[in-house]
This record gives sequence, C-alpha cells and structure tokens, in this order.
Amino acid sequence: MTICLLGAGKVAYHLGKQLQAAGYRLLQVYSRTEASARSLAQVLGCDWTNSLQSLSQADYYLCALKDEALPPVLKQIPSFPGFWLHTSGSLGLEIFEPYTRNCGVLYPLQTFSRQRELNLKTVPFFIESLSPELLSNIRSMAEKLSERVYELDSSKRKYLHLAAVFACNFSNHLYCQAATILQEQGLSFELLLPLIDETAAKVHEKPPKEAQTGPALRMDRNIIDKHLALLESQPARAELYRLLSESIYESNQKV
Amino acid sequence: MTICLLGAGKVAYHLGKQLQAAGYRLLQVYSRTEASARSLAQVLGCDWTNSLQSLSQADYYLCALKDEALPPVLKQIPSFPGFWLHTSGSLGLEIFEPYTRNCGVLYPLQTFSRQRELNLKTVPFFIESLSPELLSNIRSMAEKLSERVYELDSSKRKYLHLAAVFACNFSNHLYCQAATILQEQGLSFELLLPLIDETAAKVHEKPPKEAQTGPALRMDRNIIDKHLALLESQPARAELYRLLSESIYESNQKV
Repeated sequence: MTICLLGAGKVAYHLGKQLQAAGYRLLQVYSRTEASARSLAQVLGCDWTNSLQSLSQADYYLCALKDEALPPVLKQIPSFPGFWLHTSGSLGLEIFEPYTRNCGVLYPLQTFSRQRELNLKTVPFFIESLSPELLSNIRSMAEKLSERVYELDSSKRKYLHLAAVFACNFSNHLYCQAATILQEQGLSFELLLPLIDETAAKVHEKPPKEAQTGPALRMDRNIIDKHLALLESQPARAELYRLLSESIYESNQKV
Repeated sequence: MTICLLGAGKVAYHLGKQLQAAGYRLLQVYSRTEASARSLAQVLGCDWTNSLQSLSQADYYLCALKDEALPPVLKQIPSFPGFWLHTSGSLGLEIFEPYTRNCGVLYPLQTFSRQRELNLKTVPFFIESLSPELLSNIRSMAEKLSERVYELDSSKRKYLHLAAVFACNFSNHLYCQAATILQEQGLSFELLLPLIDETAAKVHEKPPKEAQTGPALRMDRNIIDKHLALLESQPARAELYRLLSESIYESNQKV
C-alpha cells in the first residue's frame, strides 16, 4: 500500500514515520514550503514536492494539514485518484464532498511535538468513511498504529476535539500561568511537576469531578480573596482565577 | 520524637502514616469530629481526642487543618508546650505569633486523596521557622519523608500555593469541563487520558509556553468560532473557552 503525505508538520511526521514502520510505502511528501517537504522526505527516505500538480499516483493521500490549509489544497488538485483521508478533529468528512467520494478520516486524539518520540499504541484513533470498504481499510491502517480504534462520525468528532482543547490546550495554558507566577518569585516551574503528574494520574482512578480539590470548591473567600490580592497587578490572570473559581463552585453545586 | 496530630483529613492521614513509618511516635489525633479522630487514630494505632483541653504532651504538634480551622483551634489551647507546625500553603508563619515562638511550617506541595497511596519521596516540601534550631529539626523531619526539601518564607509560599491552584485545581476543572462535553455526546472520558498524560509529560521536557498547541495560539477564528457555536447552549462554558483562548493568544504575543 502506497501513501502520499500532504503536510510536513508534527502530525505528518509522526503518522508518516509510524505508517512506514507498519509496512506502508511512503512515496512522497507534499508541502507548500519546499524546506519542510524536503526535510520530512529525508526522514522518510521518499520523494517530495511543493507542487500539487506533481503529486504521485498512490493508494492513499493522507492530508495532515492545518484545517485552513486543506480546502485551498483540495481546490488545486487536478484529479482525485486513490483514497483521500484527513486527520483533523474539527473538519467534517464533507470537506471532501465537492471533489471525491473516496474519502475518510483518520483522527489521532493526541498532542504532537516534533522533538518527542510518541508511542501511538495507546492513542485513540477515530475513523470515519461513508464507504464500508474504505472504512475497513482505514480501520486496518489505524489498527497497525494503535490498539484503540473507534468509528465516530464528524458531528461527534467535533465535540471530541472541543473536549481535547479543554483538557490539553487550556490545561497547558494554566501550567503557563503557574510557571509565570513562580518565575516572578524566582521559583522554578519544576517544583510543580509532581503536583501536575498526580493531578493527571488521579483522573485515571476517579472522575475529575470527584477528584476536584482547592479553595473554590466551597468558595473559601478567605483564601480566594488572598489569592486575588496577590494577583492585583495582573488583572487578566485575576479574571481567569475568578472565572475558573466560580465555575468550580457552580459545578460542585450541581448534583 | 513524639507527635500530636491536629486534623484528621487527607493531609493528616498521609503525613501521619508516613511520619510513623519514618520512626516518629504518633501519640494522639485531635479532630473536632469524634468519628474522624477515632478513625485516623485507629489507622495509626494511637490515642484520639475531640477536646483541645485533653491534648497529650508531645515534642511536636502538627496542625494539618483547613486554613479557617487553625485560628479558632489555637485560641482554645490552654498552654503551648512543644513545637507547633502547620502544613498550609497560604497561611503565614505569623498565625502562631500571638501564642508561641516555637513554631514553623511543613508544607507539602501535592494534592492528596484518601483512597490513593502516595509516594511522598518526590513531593517537594517547603519548610520555615524563625528558630534555626527548630528549622533544622523540621528539615530532618521533612527529609525523612521526601528527597526534595526547600526552605521558603511565608510570602513566597503564598505564591507557590497560588501557582498550585492554577496547575492543579484549575487544570482538573478543565478535565471536568471536557468530561461533561464528552458525556453529553455519550463518549467516555477515558478517551482523553492519553492526551491528558502526554500534556503533563511534555512540560517535564520543555517550558509550558513552548509546549502550547491549539487553535488559540494563532487565534484561528475558523476553529474557535465553530467551537463557540458548539457551546451555544452552555454560556458559562463558552465564556471560559473565550477567556482562556484570549489569554493563550495574548501570552503568545508577548516575547
């Protein structure tokens, strides 16, 4: 089975490498940026192009592009041979509709970094296609990468992606806020790592609502007002503190 | 060395057990609630009381109480023998000032649950005392529990506690938000665990600001507006989404 990879970012890098390790033949990397295409092609030992007119013939065209980059790419493709997949949580399957019916989705629910090697085996993959035959092919592909493969339609996948923004992007931003608070006091962010790890570990054992701790749970004004006083010179951070504390309290009031 | 433990909550439970394992003799547990005092005393195989008038003579009085519970407790104690310690991140050392000079702080930076056994060895402990002799005793005590013991004064400890609220309590609340979003779609929170773990693991390797990903980083209105549309019936959650996204964008603009 042969694959052309469209995109040369973090997702393209990880999927490309691991699909290759799983026995797929990576033919070509496309990226608008020549340097990126060339660099990932070098890692994969395959061809590269920065022209959509020069896409190779392949069984699969795997689009690991930013959401906003996919529609203009699709518009420029002269013909649509093979099967077309994208890896986006928030784009629906219908993005392919004007162009080809041989289309599907392969969405890995994970945060990717270029410098970190990642074990995909435990990463949940969400697959979708209107064609039962293609769906079964995508399932085979996903199952070669991961032990957790689920069929999920576009409308639910969007919510999954939204939930991931809360659990990953927003949590990481709170780590940033904490890091800044410590930095301003000359304290190292490393001090928080055991706490961050334990916070993540706890929700493996109990639902996050039951794992919730802290002054906002019972709206402990004594501590909250002291914290807001410490944030007096940082109105944006204070506003985040206020809103998150209110939200914790409200959630806790609901049975 | 003998210890009376004031408080019978999660911190008292974990510190009591591990101090005992480290060779300290737990004499007595005090809690206002008889059942709590009795239950922890049973775990520790020691005496209990719910009357401050009946505190035993001990080398240390370790107050692992809620912040608001400590002042009224201190007011009721007839005499102040031994050394008095509290375990709070947000209370200053000066809370002891009207009562005794033999006082200090032993603050473990961690989130405690009663049902989870916890390895304290990697938990950072922050110690404080105005008496060099007592400080050295607290250091010995802390070093029997953990490999990471730091001296830190009350004014900085407050910021540490504030940072912990962001990194732990607030992050956990975002896990809650994500869990609710998934639950409303009939999807399991477990799907997010590899993502949550990786998000926590990444900041061991790079500062959270460099680890930041997601649509808010470049204020990708395409995705953000779609997400806000999904949250239309949840104005409080939408407001959290908006504020956190703005905050991520603003942080990313700062060099």
